[in-house]
Amino acid sequence: MGDVVRRPWSARLLTLYPEMFPGPLGQSLAGRALEDGRWSLETVNIRSFATDKHHTVDDTPSGGGAGMVMRPDVIDRALTGVMADGAVTATDGAPLIYLTPRGRPLTQDRVKALAEGPGVVVLCGRFEGVDQRVLDARAAEEISVGDFVLSGGEIAALVLLDACVRLLPGVIGSRQSLDEESFERDLLEYPHYTRPRSWAGRDVPEVLLSGHHEKICAWRQAQSEIVTRERRPDLWARYLKNRVSK
Amino acid sequence: MGDVVRRPWSARLLTLYPEMFPGPLGQSLAGRALEDGRWSLETVNIRSFATDKHHTVDDTPSGGGAGMVMRPDVIDRALTGVMADGAVTATDGAPLIYLTPRGRPLTQDRVKALAEGPGVVVLCGRFEGVDQRVLDARAAEEISVGDFVLSGGEIAALVLLDACVRLLPGVIGSRQSLDEESFERDLLEYPHYTRPRSWAGRDVPEVLLSGHHEKICAWRQAQSEIVTRERRPDLWARYLKNRVSK
Repeated sequence: MGDVVRRPWSARLLTLYPEMFPGPLGQSLAGRALEDGRWSLETVNIRSFATDKHHTVDDTPSGGGAGMVMRPDVIDRALTGVMADGAVTATDGAPLIYLTPRGRPLTQDRVKALAEGPGVVVLCGRFEGVDQRVLDARAAEEISVGDFVLSGGEIAALVLLDACVRLLPGVIGSRQSLDEESFERDLLEYPHYTRPRSWAGRDVPEVLLSGHHEKICAWRQAQSEIVTRERRPDLWARYLKNRVSK
Repeated sequence: MGDVVRRPWSARLLTLYPEMFPGPLGQSLAGRALEDGRWSLETVNIRSFATDKHHTVDDTPSGGGAGMVMRPDVIDRALTGVMADGAVTATDGAPLIYLTPRGRPLTQDRVKALAEGPGVVVLCGRFEGVDQRVLDARAAEEISVGDFVLSGGEIAALVLLDACVRLLPGVIGSRQSLDEESFERDLLEYPHYTRPRSWAGRDVPEVLLSGHHEKICAWRQAQSEIVTRERRPDLWARYLKNRVSK
């Protein structure tokens, strides 16, 4: 029986701006992981699937209104192009994600699930967005990275990929560092301190210098609860509910 | 009386990875606006404010735990460096923003307010984050771009800047296009359609081809309500509450 060779986590992006990638993901943690073959990145230029001589990818919105909408036929051909590569197949299991403020909010749980899978196919919209019919026909998962509007899906794609790639095996040296971070237990993380012990009239909280592991844990837990209650009543409510139900 | 000359909206970033900028913001809408002088971008390399020969910017967390924490003295010197430039002063009014999952969530309202101001100073953290004392001392505004963890503040900074820059005067041709988008009325946007009228057995909804403006508006409103209720019970609850109180 041969070894099971794990293919690198694969990111395939459909965009009008392929030159934006890898961009910041070509450096630091994600960049090293890309060089090391822990993940792969492929961009597909949507414009090359336009069929008229002006390479038109958009048209005016049905029903009127400002801006332009990306045509379903062009997007669909771009997706079929990715599939014909053998890259996306029914058994490949990489979901097609369309990044839009209309989507369900991205969570750390979804990031983890995506990082544990084979990869993602990400459709980056521009202008007013993509014709809904191709999203429906391809069963695209609509995801939002937050309650704000960006000029296109490309920077949202960088967010999604960075969040996933850092969770791939071997990308961050210390797994412990992943276990304690924000959202792991419906709480924001506690505040951090380091040297110097006294700086500009401000001291590191004494308990952190006590060497008393249990007291440090209790203090950090209390700090996490305080900041969550203050800044994120939504998370705090969920935390209380989950704590009661345990 | 001379003309009031409006200085371009200014983004100043403190980072360990200045080469990540402008990155994707150097292209498309934001890139053209940068070339046209509608906004300016300045990066400060935090590492150049380290004082030891190894250019150390971080140290182990007080109280123990995984990872490293960015030192308050180094960050503070980097901030003072930006200020000495004359760039950040008490009257300049550009807030200091620290991007962290511990922060209050970024909203389109906050984006609008920032875009209407003189600019932003953004501190990009790495590792486990920045020593809390310098954030407190400098009254940094802690903002989160979402309930997920990134490998550093740089990609979150791209999100923040892109969201702001597209709202600057003249960056997007049509103002109408900004008025109808998601979050403008606590609702997600309606779905978009364009040509061809019939595609792959799917037709553009007939009402959109009716030319009947009121019916189109009513249909879009209903679609916005449906998608908001289904995907965003939190926004939906706020929408109902605000509607009742009017």
